[in-house]
Formats: sequence, structure tokens, C-alpha cells
Amino acid sequence: MKSINKQVVLARRPMGKPKNSDFKVIESKIPDIKQGEALVQNLYISLDAGFRNWMDEDSGNDVLPAMPVGEAVMGLTLSRVVRSKDSEFAEGQLLMGRLAWEEYSIAGKDDFLVPVTDDGIHPLSYHLGVLGDTGMSAYFGLVDIGKPAEHETVLISAAGGAVGSVAGQITRILGARRVVGFAGSDAKCDWLVKKLGFDAAINYSSRDLDVEINRACPDGIDIYFDNVGGRLLEPVLNQINNGSRVVFCGAVADYTRTEDSGPSNLFQLVTNCARIEGFLTHTKVDRYDEARSMLSKWLSEGRLVSFEHMYEGIECCGQAFADLFAGKNYGKTLVKALLPEA
Amino acid sequence: MKSINKQVVLARRPMGKPKNSDFKVIESKIPDIKQGEALVQNLYISLDAGFRNWMDEDSGNDVLPAMPVGEAVMGLTLSRVVRSKDSEFAEGQLLMGRLAWEEYSIAGKDDFLVPVTDDGIHPLSYHLGVLGDTGMSAYFGLVDIGKPAEHETVLISAAGGAVGSVAGQITRILGARRVVGFAGSDAKCDWLVKKLGFDAAINYSSRDLDVEINRACPDGIDIYFDNVGGRLLEPVLNQINNGSRVVFCGAVADYTRTEDSGPSNLFQLVTNCARIEGFLTHTKVDRYDEARSMLSKWLSEGRLVSFEHMYEGIECCGQAFADLFAGKNYGKTLVKALLPEA
Repeated sequence: MKSINKQVVLARRPMGKPKNSDFKVIESKIPDIKQGEALVQNLYISLDAGFRNWMDEDSGNDVLPAMPVGEAVMGLTLSRVVRSKDSEFAEGQLLMGRLAWEEYSIAGKDDFLVPVTDDGIHPLSYHLGVLGDTGMSAYFGLVDIGKPAEHETVLISAAGGAVGSVAGQITRILGARRVVGFAGSDAKCDWLVKKLGFDAAINYSSRDLDVEINRACPDGIDIYFDNVGGRLLEPVLNQINNGSRVVFCGAVADYTRTEDSGPSNLFQLVTNCARIEGFLTHTKVDRYDEARSMLSKWLSEGRLVSFEHMYEGIECCGQAFADLFAGKNYGKTLVKALLPEA
Repeated sequence: MKSINKQVVLARRPMGKPKNSDFKVIESKIPDIKQGEALVQNLYISLDAGFRNWMDEDSGNDVLPAMPVGEAVMGLTLSRVVRSKDSEFAEGQLLMGRLAWEEYSIAGKDDFLVPVTDDGIHPLSYHLGVLGDTGMSAYFGLVDIGKPAEHETVLISAAGGAVGSVAGQITRILGARRVVGFAGSDAKCDWLVKKLGFDAAINYSSRDLDVEINRACPDGIDIYFDNVGGRLLEPVLNQINNGSRVVFCGAVADYTRTEDSGPSNLFQLVTNCARIEGFLTHTKVDRYDEARSMLSKWLSEGRLVSFEHMYEGIECCGQAFADLFAGKNYGKTLVKALLPEA
């Protein structure tokens, strides 16, 4: 085992969208562990837009304080126990947890650790993606809130992202008539239609979003699965159908918000007897088994495909995170932290 | 019967909040009726913020076009048939319909006419208020969407208005722990607490709404019954509880909107697993009997009290409508059109 730990620390608090230069790679000694702790080697790191909030001075969250500048950036990891001084963690055991962008971490009871079993079927990294929070967000959002009916049109924002790319496929599996996605480039729109089976895709930067939405959703919108938030909701609300549902999953626009305004046409919810509903996957822990078993089944049947945008090496974390907000990534953004030693 | 019809016509399209000078009283001859029509005498006229939309050049509605300038203003009326050339309407019969601000109207099949029975118990005018759309909006919003639980805090905007004043009382009847209202003046706040049994009231114009909301709702907000819309939603969303519901009933702020922005913190819906749900009473016609019988029962038991702000004489319609938007009225705003002849 190496004795040097490579870490990615927060160099400064990002303004708006994060840049690679907001982060810095440092080397430190792999720390000793105390009673009740385990040393883990991080195999994969999940890059999630939601962590952007914790990089601000005011994280807006009472439970988790803002990440300190100069310390390793908080992240979700899939890790293997190397040494343990806690009877709950055995050497070699796989864990998911809220650890950090580093090769080795000290893991303890405050790190939201969850044991992971290698099923020998799906790649390990899927536990951070399609079989983890990402896939379950798509699953719960559609099964519990969206509930697409056969004749309905479902529109998905950030459709080429981690949650969106799974949500689009699940929509199809659940039998909706039409699936349409928003994406940040023509190339990604093309990918949605050709690789993911979307019926149409809309580039956010289209000159006339009203016309583009109408073209892509000629019968109106019944479900809007929103991963983005912000003012994009406005042109969407102008074309919702009676009884429609906005599944509010994430809000990339709000994580990096510098302006101070939201959609001005919420009254569309009244005239269309429609609703916006937010949710958090972690409030549905008692149904994780249900969600994972359905997702796993669909993967095995080939009806659901996981797309991973995999970076190699811990020093890529900053760039990967910046690319995520720049809309450059396809599917789930991950960093493979454990590389074969040179 | 008189031969002259007094009418209130739209003199010009209002900018923002309507003013009395946007309307003009004219006299005309009481018209003859054709086959399939009835001549009705309007007893009461209901003044509703929702009609403001139809005074704009673009009514935003595909079904009903904008009201023409120079013609009698469209309104909800409670009327009695004077002469009939339609077998469906008998002389003396009571009707509610979408007619106009005038003493006499021609009523036909396109006027959304509904027969009304005088139950001999409640005043006739209640059919336009607590036993009509107003009361049913409060009823359906709370029974179908809000569903207050015993431990919950319910906050109501425009709480001194037609729907709000009924919603506050129904909230109490359904057993919520705490009822709080927004109103436009200290006098109205006082009225809410002393006459309507609200636990607390907040003046919209308070210097620090965040502090005032927190003071009035120390355990957070579980249900927000919103009759106002617009940016007031923003400070409210900052204090909602997990699993809370925003019952979106009306949007006075949106009817008179001149600015172009909405709440910027909709992400609170995600972090609190909360929802905003809009509804329209007229989509629940099959449950009107249920709603009316509950409201009538509560009225008879003295648990629900109807407050009417009654203007006398058709020429008051413009002022009454302006007062409604200026927040001057208490309870349901009505004009008694049929006055004893001098």
C-alpha cells in the first residue's frame, strides 16, 4: 500500500459555475485510525451537482455545514475497507459513504456509511449511479409522482445527465407515449434521440424555446421531470396540459444561481389543475430494495442501459465537476480513484 | 317594471389594479328577447378578482375572449327570470350565471346558467359566496389538497377576502392546530384574530416578513392556502415544513402583474419534499352537492359565519371592484343590484 494520500481540496469558493481552478491537488500522509474508525480506499467517486451548495459560505443546510476552504472536498464514494478498528467494518468490505475527493479516507459513524454487496452481475460503479441515488431518483420521481399514463408526453430537463438519462429510459419502460429531453448541445440532443430512444430533444439555447417545445411536444406536456430548476420552468408551464405533474428532482440552475428571479407564470398551475412536487430519495429508504431490484431487473433485461462518463485518477475531480456544470458529460459522471500503480 | 336598464361598461382597459374610472355607468333600453332566451333581473352581482384577466386585451384564455371596451362588464350574477321564451326557464325562477354588471340581462344557453333553489334558511346572496364558488374553493382546497392534520399550522393569504375568510374557518373546523392569515392592513389583521378566530395575522406590508412569519408560525408552515400568488410565495417557502402543501387557489398578484418575476426559491420544494398544487372548483361539479351540504351544515350549526361586504346599487360595481384590489373589503364583495324603487 502507498503511504501518500492524494487529495483534492477546495482552493476557493466557486462563483456560479465551478471551475477546475477552484480546486487544488495536494499530497498528504495516509492518516492513522482511532478506535471506531476504518481506513478505506476510495474506488470510485460520484460527482453530483447537489454538492455545489456545500461549497458556498452559506450552505443553506442546517445539518451539513459549508465545506472548509483548504480541506478535501466532500463527495460520495464507493470504497473498500483497508484497515478497521471498528467491529462493524471488516477488512475488504465495500462501503458507500459521504467521504471526500481523496484516495484514502478515514470513515466513521458520521459518514452515512452503507454496506454494498458486489452482486457479480453489474459493475461496482453502478452502485453510485443507476443502482444508487441517481437511478433511484429517476425511479421514485416517475413511479411515485409522475406516474406516466399511456397517452402522455414526458419532458425531461438535463436529459443527458445522470438522472435524466435513466429517467428517459424508465419513462419508456413505464409506457408513456412520448419522451422528450432538454440538453445543452446539439450533439447531446442527437445522442438522446439516437442512443437513448428519446422521441425528440431540445437544445436549451434554442432561439425560441416556445416554438421548440411546441414542436417537440405537439400534444402538450403531461409530466415535466425537472433536474434543472430556474426560469426554464416558465416556457414549460406555458405548455402544460390539464392535470399535469412537475416532478421536481434537482435544480442545477439554483445551485449556481446568481440572479434573483424565478418563473413568473406559476398561475398556470391553477388554470391547468397541475402541481409541482419535490422529493428526496433518502426519505424513501424503506423502498430502496424495491427500487434497486426493479432497476437491476431492467438492466439485466437490456431495457435499461447505464451510461457512465468515467474520469481516471483523483486529480480529475475538479475538472470532472466543472465539466458537469458545463454540460459536457453524458450520463453519470464518475472518477475512478484507484488506478493500477505505475 | 322599469323600461330603462342601468349598465356598467368597461370605459378603458385597467393598467394593473383597476380603478373606478376604468368603468362608466350608462343607461339603455331594456332589450326584447328572442326564442331560446330569457330576460332576467339581476339581484346580486359577485365581484371576483379572477375577472380582472378578461379586462386585458389578451385574456390569456382560449374559451372566453377579452371583454370589449364600451360593453357591459362580464360578471357572476344571481338573477330572477322576468320573461322567458325558453321552456327551460320559468318566470320567477332563480338562476346563477355569467352575465353582466347591469340591472337586466338577456340570458341564454351560453351563459353558464345554473338553477338556484331558495332553501328558505340562508340568504339568497350566499349562493354567490359561501355556498357558491367562494365557499367551495375553500372547501375543495382544504379537503382535497391541504388536508390539515391536528398538529399542523395553516397559513392563508388574502385571509380577509371571500375565499380566505371561509378557508380560515374551515381549517379550524377540520381541526388544524394553528391558523394564521395574511391581510393588507392592521385593522383587517385585527378583524381576522378577533372576529374570525385566527391565531395570528401578518400585515403584508410588514418591514421584515421573514421575522413576522416566523413569529406567527413558530413551528413552521404545513399548509399555505394561497389566494394571492406572486413573490409573497418566496418568504413563505423559506419557512415550510417537510411534507408541506401549497394549495394554489388564486393569484390576485398575477391578475394585475406588471413586473416579470416569480419566487426564486422553488428549490425549497425539493429539500422539504413539498408541493404546490393548483385547482379549479368548476372541475369538481360532481361534488358540488357534497360541498354545499357540508358548508350549509356548518353555517346552520354556527361554526361557519359568512361575511359579506355588500354595496348597494349597480353604479357601485366599479368602485366595489377597485376596492377589492385595494384590499379594502372584508369577506365576500357583492353588489345588490335590485333596490326598492324610489
